This record gives sequence, structure tokens and C-alpha cells, in this order.
Amino acid sequence: MGYSDTDKLAINTIRVLAADATAHANSGHPGAPMGMAPVAHVLWNKFLRFNPKNPKWLGRDRFVLSNGHACMLQYALLHLYGYALSIDDLKAFRSVDSITPGHPESHDTPGIEVTTGPLGQGICNAVGLAMAQAHTAAVFNKPGFDLIDNYTYCFLGDGCLMEGVSSEASSLAGHLQLGNLIAVWDDNQITIDGSTEVAFTEDVVKRYEAYGWQVLTVGDGENDLDGIEAAIKKGQEEKTKPTLIKLTTIIGFGSKQQGTHNVHGSPLKPDDIKQLKEKFGFNPEESFAVPKNVYELCNEAASRGAKLEAEWNDLFAKYGEQHKAEHDDLVRRQTGDLPEGWEKSLPVYTPADPAVASRKLSEIVLNKIHQAIPELVGGSADLTGSNLTRWKDAVDFQPPSTKLGDYTGRYIRYGVREHAMGAIMNGLAAYGTIVPYGGTFLNFVSYAAGATRLSALSRVRVLWVATHDSIGLGEDGPTHQPIETLAHYRALPNNMVWRPADGNETSAAYYVALTSKHTPSVMAFSRQNLPQLEGSTIEKAIKGGYVLHEDETADITLVSTGSEVCICIDAIKELKEKHNIKARMVSIPCFEVFDLQDKAYRMSVLPDGIPSMSVEVMSTMGWERYTHEQFGLNRFGASGAYKDVYKKFEFTPEGIAKRAIATVNFWKDVPNIRSPINRAFQQMI
Amino acid sequence: MGYSDTDKLAINTIRVLAADATAHANSGHPGAPMGMAPVAHVLWNKFLRFNPKNPKWLGRDRFVLSNGHACMLQYALLHLYGYALSIDDLKAFRSVDSITPGHPESHDTPGIEVTTGPLGQGICNAVGLAMAQAHTAAVFNKPGFDLIDNYTYCFLGDGCLMEGVSSEASSLAGHLQLGNLIAVWDDNQITIDGSTEVAFTEDVVKRYEAYGWQVLTVGDGENDLDGIEAAIKKGQEEKTKPTLIKLTTIIGFGSKQQGTHNVHGSPLKPDDIKQLKEKFGFNPEESFAVPKNVYELCNEAASRGAKLEAEWNDLFAKYGEQHKAEHDDLVRRQTGDLPEGWEKSLPVYTPADPAVASRKLSEIVLNKIHQAIPELVGGSADLTGSNLTRWKDAVDFQPPSTKLGDYTGRYIRYGVREHAMGAIMNGLAAYGTIVPYGGTFLNFVSYAAGATRLSALSRVRVLWVATHDSIGLGEDGPTHQPIETLAHYRALPNNMVWRPADGNETSAAYYVALTSKHTPSVMAFSRQNLPQLEGSTIEKAIKGGYVLHEDETADITLVSTGSEVCICIDAIKELKEKHNIKARMVSIPCFEVFDLQDKAYRMSVLPDGIPSMSVEVMSTMGWERYTHEQFGLNRFGASGAYKDVYKKFEFTPEGIAKRAIATVNFWKDVPNIRSPINRAFQQMI
Repeated sequence: MGYSDTDKLAINTIRVLAADATAHANSGHPGAPMGMAPVAHVLWNKFLRFNPKNPKWLGRDRFVLSNGHACMLQYALLHLYGYALSIDDLKAFRSVDSITPGHPESHDTPGIEVTTGPLGQGICNAVGLAMAQAHTAAVFNKPGFDLIDNYTYCFLGDGCLMEGVSSEASSLAGHLQLGNLIAVWDDNQITIDGSTEVAFTEDVVKRYEAYGWQVLTVGDGENDLDGIEAAIKKGQEEKTKPTLIKLTTIIGFGSKQQGTHNVHGSPLKPDDIKQLKEKFGFNPEESFAVPKNVYELCNEAASRGAKLEAEWNDLFAKYGEQHKAEHDDLVRRQTGDLPEGWEKSLPVYTPADPAVASRKLSEIVLNKIHQAIPELVGGSADLTGSNLTRWKDAVDFQPPSTKLGDYTGRYIRYGVREHAMGAIMNGLAAYGTIVPYGGTFLNFVSYAAGATRLSALSRVRVLWVATHDSIGLGEDGPTHQPIETLAHYRALPNNMVWRPADGNETSAAYYVALTSKHTPSVMAFSRQNLPQLEGSTIEKAIKGGYVLHEDETADITLVSTGSEVCICIDAIKELKEKHNIKARMVSIPCFEVFDLQDKAYRMSVLPDGIPSMSVEVMSTMGWERYTHEQFGLNRFGASGAYKDVYKKFEFTPEGIAKRAIATVNFWKDVPNIRSPINRAFQQMI
Repeated sequence: MGYSDTDKLAINTIRVLAADATAHANSGHPGAPMGMAPVAHVLWNKFLRFNPKNPKWLGRDRFVLSNGHACMLQYALLHLYGYALSIDDLKAFRSVDSITPGHPESHDTPGIEVTTGPLGQGICNAVGLAMAQAHTAAVFNKPGFDLIDNYTYCFLGDGCLMEGVSSEASSLAGHLQLGNLIAVWDDNQITIDGSTEVAFTEDVVKRYEAYGWQVLTVGDGENDLDGIEAAIKKGQEEKTKPTLIKLTTIIGFGSKQQGTHNVHGSPLKPDDIKQLKEKFGFNPEESFAVPKNVYELCNEAASRGAKLEAEWNDLFAKYGEQHKAEHDDLVRRQTGDLPEGWEKSLPVYTPADPAVASRKLSEIVLNKIHQAIPELVGGSADLTGSNLTRWKDAVDFQPPSTKLGDYTGRYIRYGVREHAMGAIMNGLAAYGTIVPYGGTFLNFVSYAAGATRLSALSRVRVLWVATHDSIGLGEDGPTHQPIETLAHYRALPNNMVWRPADGNETSAAYYVALTSKHTPSVMAFSRQNLPQLEGSTIEKAIKGGYVLHEDETADITLVSTGSEVCICIDAIKELKEKHNIKARMVSIPCFEVFDLQDKAYRMSVLPDGIPSMSVEVMSTMGWERYTHEQFGLNRFGASGAYKDVYKKFEFTPEGIAKRAIATVNFWKDVPNIRSPINRAFQQMI
């Protein structure tokens, strides 16, 4: 306790920097940084464990700005505390190719843990980071070695609290008794539309108590630094509940417009900035000025952090002497590399092996590899028995008091909360010691679209086990049958969509998904049984697309994925026997990986001089990139036994053959047919 | 109060029908129907106002099954109470082309108000239906004419309560003081993963009280019929709060496996069905048997309903005598037709008009048409000032006690709740007297993917005003810049995506969106200014795609949408002046509508014999359907002033010209270039 004038100056420096940077960019959100500067100062100066010279130190506390539009707060802190973020970077706020973009992006900026801005996501990431801490601690800590004992702190605003995804994750966080999570709600009573009274009059305190959180209140977030400090301390002391601190602040504190939504998303006017600087003792003629004693105060905290890391490194070295295997495992995990030779556990199939649903093939992979990859931590949004995501004898990740598992458990019961699962997985992956996967029906990955997009943007390795991947799920009907979902996720940059056709392709999907350190994957698996294909191998399938059946004299190339490949194979027989038409067969389990192969290879798979037709029981969108004609489903499906549904829409050998014949006839007179792969210029990727 | 043996028999009939139908289909969810049969009986037999002979009677109560997997409950009720749903329809449960699909679909089955199954959606639809009732009542009821006074009842399960979307809508429902909404929570403590203890241990009662709901508890949902009746009555009496009834039930009541997750999603075994029927006094040798006195009991309720409708029709006729304009308006609204001549209010532009952002053009449309279309009810997910969705002097839809508006208000403050907004709009549209629109950034329509999909599947007219539609939003950066979003929504069946290039195209978008009674629309609008184009007209644009600039001797067709059309126009000048290349210009503001035009028209827009190139600052996915080459952005954007961002990615006249030249050269030697429109066979739509 006890805050000096320098502390207050440091707080006002944050406010002035936020005002200067948004004014300089002529864009941005000064209000929240100015209102939250006091709690940010108390947290960073008194509590947060970090070393700016090593933003990746495993033992650091995690700080998440869920109200990411307030990023000038975070950028100012990163600068003041000595991260590799200069005054020039602050001046470049919101300009192209800066490390200070309009919302925080973890891959661009040292010290940013997760990419935030889309509201509600950050608090869920924080839940994931806290779960990762609890798990990593339970696995690695030993008597005398409390190596993993960090807190996760999260700032969030009213918008985050209104988003349903935060409700999902907060309910789960309470259930999981995450005592290592401390969230600060910026209760400024202002949203873009004005007062929160217009749409947000619930009792948040009561709601979070209902979730099982400790809720604390600080009534004067602009001045009561001691109260803020006491609340954070109380949050640290509560070991079996996450803490929410309701901090009443004044948005844009110091501005002439403070307390109004006018300071939310627009820079302050010049005269307002002038009076702000005068009020806070800054020279109104100067911009981006940081008083020397403020730097010094922040440097002290940073030095303490560097010392803490040094001590931690010593402890970790001693740990290595007594627990070499665990030490080395923890070192390896942080590199993102998987244990050497893990891929030998991947199952390999021959056509003699029985037909199996690819969701089951996925389960077989998980059963085979989970021992080889100890950082694999999975779960399902309440569809465990359908997604087949839980390996035999898995331990659930649960608070020990529930007697349903413990924190060493590697299987997470997410509940019916797909969006939170996606956002939590982003946090789990960001922690650095876990590779997360999560299961739901493919159709309901869309519920998590807000989170999956951020997986891709923030370049984290997150795996979706997306079962029941088409109309082939049958009776549940159109409400559950994805049509647009693969197109959606194929259009998402830096995201892999896999739809394996058999066991070898399933192994290939897991191989590429698990070894792609910076790309998430949506793996689509069937409910229905699929035969093991002649011609498939893991080696071929990891190229994303390959020739399953070659015929130099073919009249057409059939191209397909997943459960339709085997129907195409039957169609090829039909074409040959009944129509004297010869077809090549190409399987493209993953567009994105196929696109990464060199052109010569891709042209060998989809060559010039022959028409091609795709077959996939969902939207044809995107297939025009690979084939001349498309057989798909640009309408909703139907409820019924899956074979009846396939028949209704003519996804049968006969239905495919009919369209293949039309394709051959239509392209017969075209000389020098050009492969769709053959393009005038490269796409920008 | 007072329930007879016949009541109990009726309840057990529902249970037996659910067991029979799921067994017969060898698929489905018997557990929830069996557990909820008592509350369903009490509600339908004692309270629900409906006439099975006219499922569209405006004065009816609305019943929503949010736990849609329990649809055999609803199908059994519809059958017993005399809707056009026969025993044969029950026997056809979950078979292709039946009216009893695996989850309830409103467009297929008489008596189904909204399409449910994806968890959490139904309760939000119910909130929308209740809001629609409150609004319609406020607008149309007159002294002595309480025409619009129905309740909305909703059943929901644990899964619905876990989904964040229900949290969003429930918070808003509390804020809006919807006393006409009564929800029954099937508290059976079972989810697919087993006991709710594994993931759902929050205090739901406290949470809903925090939202401002009345929460009631019935401890024995299988036997305490009087308690159920009393709770529903208390729900009806509470006029300023929605009511949640916590009803403790036993899933699969009567089965040998009752109370376990084994009865959730799998049919009962034959011996289990046998003992069930024996226990309930049914002949175990018979299936789909309904005792005569059960039919009679249900018929009585149905007759009461028919009488209620007759009385209502009399009242409505009298209303028509005293309030002819309102009467006729209400009749018209129910047809889905807009007021005659409304389209004359749509603004028309010439190239002399100033450049305006299309979000602003959208605002102009709303200002012009809101008086002509009184059923237009809009809102925004807390981005009113950015989306420009609120016409001048609009009244907010608010409880009068807030003094912020009243229930006649046509502008809804949704808060930061995009998903709930989408799901609520589905309910608003389903009520029959409202055409809803809602605003957010295009990027965040994805948060509502679960709801938008159901808009399309259930064929409701819902309009999204999706502003800030590209990297053109500038400084907010990649977290807010959509790349995949249009591809996603273009791939969604029965959904229109509009991206207008100027004022006339904006008017066209609204025209088609508002006159398409059974198709939702996502309208993408720019943040940045766009000039009024030479050659655009409403008449051309309502075809979805058209030639903006014709040139019979052209070397290439440029094809674009929205904010890139005007850049293409400049590129055409550049190509002509500097490279002696001539280009035609095509604008395709809406793929889906263009696809509906006849082939001759489409071929005239995108003819054979000339190469084409699309230009759109987002994923190229889908453009291969229309053009030979694509210039787009298959990566995430950048934070910066929008002109800098466009320049970085070369979306400039020069960047477009460069690629157009490459396209012309690449296709130069190909004889008889075939238009991508020209296909071997028709897609199934």
C-alpha cells in the first residue's frame, strides 16, 4: 500500500499516451485506457510477474486485455515497462505494418499473449490460460518445486460481459474452480450506444456469484489505488474460485467528455488534449512525452521481474537435476516440437482392413498417439460418445474436490459450449505447454466462428474433431447437416480443413494438423462407415491431394473427399462397365495443404487435357478452383437414414456416373482443355 | 386443478408414442419427451390457446421447443390435439420427406412455430416472439380490443442453458421486462456426457434472477401436476418479468433406464418398451396406439381453442369497424406483402450525386422507407452510430418504466449480443407481423452463424445490415476485417448476400431483401465513401448481376462488387490509356439472385469468348464460378488508414490493371474461351 506522486504520474502518463496515440492516428479508443490506467498501473507495478526482456518466460503471469479496443493501454504498458515496443511504435499506432495495430495481435507484438478485440474472446482465452496453468502445474510441479504457479489476469468491459461466449467460459471457470484467474471488469456504464442502461441492466455481481466466482467491488476505480491493490490481493488468496473485480471507472477520465460514449471510439479533440495535459502536469506542446521518473518507476518493476525469472531459471535447473525427464519434456513442449518418433504411433491401413466410420478412425488415432504426445489435451462440447474424442481410460480435467478427475486430467468436459471451447482452446494453445483438440458436430463448429477465426489469425495449433460431417449423419436432419461449413472454413485464411476418406488419410490429417505449429485445423469425420481405399497412403495424403487411381487413357478425372471417395470408386466401375468411360480418381482431403504443393505436382494431379468433376455432398463453393464441373448440394439436406438421404440427392454410383457422362460430353469438343489449376497469376497469400 | 386418470393416461400416451416412434425409426431422443410429458400435458390441455385447424391464427399462444431433439414430444402433441399430423406421420418419424424430421422444422410441419434443434436457439426465438407480441400489442391494441395478448411458452433443457446465445437473449428479455414469456427448464440433470455435474454446476436460479426473471421451482415434474399448473399460472400473473420454471424431471420416465443418459439419444430396447406399456396399462403387442378417451380429452381442448379463435375473429371484425386502417394493416402484414407502392420511397441516384459510404446509403434507405413499411423493426448490436441503422427520431423499443422508449418503439437496443440478435430476429419474423433487420460489422455476423443458418433453413425474412464490410474499414485491423465471411454466407443455401457498389445498388438490395418473403439477406456495406456509378440502375441491379459498362470489342471482362467496382472503373481507364486494352465491366452485387436469372441473361453478362477476372478484397472462394481469374485476398488484412491498406494489397487501378493484363495474355491463345457460367449440368438447388 502507499502510492506516491510518481505512481499517479505514471497513471497519467498512460492516459496522455493513449490520448496522444489516438489523436496521432486520428483513430482508436482513448476512453477505456484512460479509465483503466489506475488498475493497470497497480497490477503491472505491484503484482504482475514478467520480464520484458523475455516475454516468453514460462513462469510469467499472463495478462489478457479482453476489451482489446483499449489496446493503447497495453501498448503504453509494454513501452513503459521495457518491452521491445518503442515510442516510434506508439507513434505508428494503427498504421500499416506497425507492431501496434488497431487491436492487439499476439503474433506481431512482444508481450501480447492472445489476439483480442472481438468482444468476449479474451476472457475465454484467459480461462484457457488459467486451465493450462492448473494442468501444467499438476503435471510438472513437485515437492519443493512450485515451478508453475502463475496467475492469469484479465481486463474486460461491459461488451465482453454481454457476449454469450464469456457466459459459457465463465460458467465453466466457476465449475473448474480456477483460483488462479483474476478478472477486472471495467464497470464504466458506457457502451457505444450510450449508457449500459439501454440494454444491460442485469445484476452482474449476482450472475458471477451464480457461476461460483468470488466477486469483489471497488467503487472508485480512478482514485482508490489501495482498494484496487487489496482486491487483487484477495483475488490471489482465493484458491478455489476465480475472482471478478467490479471496478467502477470513468471512461475517458480526465477528458472534458469523460463519462460519455464520445470518448469511447474517437480521439480527443486538440483543445481537450491540451487541458488534459495541463491538468496532469504535462507540457501541452509535447506529444508522446514520458517523464523520466515514470520510466524509472517502471524499470524497477521490470528489474524485479528479471530477477524473478533468474531465480525461476535457477529453480528450473535444480528441477532438471532431480526430475530430468519432466524438465526436458517441459523444455521440449515450449519449442512446439512433438516428441521424436511420435508419428510411428499413427495407424496404417490396407484395403483388407474393415470399413470404419472416420470418427472412429479418429478415435483410434487418439488412442494410439496420446501416450506419445503427453501435451495433447482434448475434450468435447458434450458429445463425447458421438465425437469419440476420449481415449480409453482418460482422466477428466476436473477439480479434485469433485472426485470426477483432477487437474492432471487430459480430457475436458466443456459442456454444450462450442464457442467457449474454441476460445478456451486458443488460450490453452497460447500457454505454450499444451496442444488442444475439441470435439463437436461439424455443423456446430460454426457456433464457434468467432473463436476459430482468431485461432487462424493468431496462428495457434488448435484441432477441431468435427464429426457427423455431412448429410451422412442421417436422421438428425437438416438442422444438424452442414452444407456451408467446409466452404466457410476453407475460405478462412491460415486454417486447414481436412476431410479424410479412410484410415490412412485420417492418420495424415492428424500428422499435418499436429505438426503445423502455427495453423489450426478443422478435421471433418463421418458418422457412417468408410472402406479402406486401394491406393491411399499417409505419404500421399499429407500432400493434401493426390491421385488415388491413375489411368493414362482416362476420359475424366473424378475428384472427391471423405465419404464420397468410395462412392466415386464405385461410380468409376459403373462408368467403365456400363458406359465404356474411363476415369481417374483424385482425393483432396485438404485444399490448403494441396495448394501449398508446387505447381508441377498439382498439375500432375489435375492435369490439362482432361475434364474433371468434383463430388462432395455439400456446397460446391470453392470446388471450381480445382474442377471443371461440380456435383454437390447447394440446398439443405433431409432427415432420414443416411443411405436414403444419399439416394434422394443422387449421391450414388449411378448419380455420379450420370453427371460424369454429362461432363465428358460437354467437354468433348473443347481442344486443349485447361486445368483449373493453371492460372494467369498467383493469388496473394 | 384436479387431474383425472384420463389426464394421466394422456401423459403416458405421449411417453409411449415417443418410445414407439423412436423405436420404429431406430433413431431419436425418447428421454426428454418421456420426462416432459406431464408439463406438456398441463400446458397444452389447460393453458395453451390454439386452434389446430388454423395453426396460423394470429391470436394463438406460441409454443417453442428449444430442446428440439425432444421433437417426438411436440409431434405427439400435434397429433393428439388434431393438427394435420397423422399416426402415419408419426410412423414416418425421421424418414426422408416426412413432416416429422429429426428436429422440428417450421416450414414443413403445421403447428411448428420455429425450427429448433441447434441448442440455445429456441429460447432466443421465444424471446423474439414475446418481443413481437409486446410490440404488436402496443401498436394495435385499443381500449376494449385486447387483440394481441398471447403468451409465448418455451421448453428448454440444460444444453440450451449452457449455450451462450441463451444467456444473451435471457439477459435482454429481463431488461425488456417480457412478462408474456414463460419458459420451462427441463431440469433432468442429464446431458449426453452424463450427469450435469461434469460441467454444469452453476446456480441457474440465481443467474436468472440476476437477469431480472421470476424463477419458480417445481420439485416433482413427473407427478405434481397441480404444482405445474400453479407455476404456469404464477408465470401468467407476473406482468413485468419473464418467468423461468425450474422443473425437476426424470429423463426417460417409465423406462428401465430412466434417469440416465442412455435414454437421451437412443431408442428404448424392445423389452424396455414392453414393460413400459404394461406399466402404463397399454397393450405391449400394439404400437402407436392412442386410447379413445385420450383423443376425446385432447379434442375438448382443441374445441375450446377453436371457440377462442371464433371469438377472437368476432372481436377482430368489430375492431375493423372502429379501426379500419389498423385492421387492414394487420391483415396485410400477415400476408407478408409490403404496403402497395412502398418501393417508390427508395432513393434513386445519378452519377452527379456525391460519393457516400454505402452504410450511409443504407441509412438513407431506412430513413426513406420506414414510414412506408410500418412493420420494419430494426436494431443494432451496440453499433448504432457505426451501422447507421437508426432512422431520425426513431423510438426505442423499451419497457415504458425505463423512460427510454416504449413497446411501440421500432428500434431495438440489442447490446453486444450478435448471436442473440440473429436468433431473436428469427422469432420476430416468425411472429408474422414484423420484418426485422439488425446491424453489426460484417465480421461479427459470424458470431451469429448458428442463428443465420436457421434463418435460411426456416425461410424467414431477416435482414442483416452488415457494415464495415472489408479491409476498407481500415484502422481497426485484421481482427475486424472480414475475409471469409461473404464466402461463408454465399455458401449458405437460401441466403442472399448483397454487396452494393453505390446508391442504386443499395436500393436494389433493400428492394429484393424486403420483397423476398422466405429468404434472409446479409447486406454488406462499406465504411468508406463510394461514388455513384455511371450505368447503375435499380432495375438492373435487382437481377443480382449486370453489365455496368459494355464494350463489344473488349479484351477482358472485369467483375466486381461493392467498393471495388469504382476502382475497377478507374483500372479500365488505365488499361485503355496506358495499355490499349479494352475491358467490359460487370457488377454482381448478389450471387444468389444472379444465379436465379435464366442462362441466356447470365451468358449475356458473362459471355463466351472473352476472359474474365474478378476483383474483391476478400477470399476468392466462389468467384471461380463466374470468372476465369480472381484477384482477392486469401490472407488476413492489415491495420491502417483504408487507402494505405488497399495500396498494400494492390487493390488500386494499377494493381488491377497489372493482373488484367496477365489475364489477357494468359488466355490469348485459347480459342473459343468458354464462360464459367456454361456448365455441363445443373446444380441441385
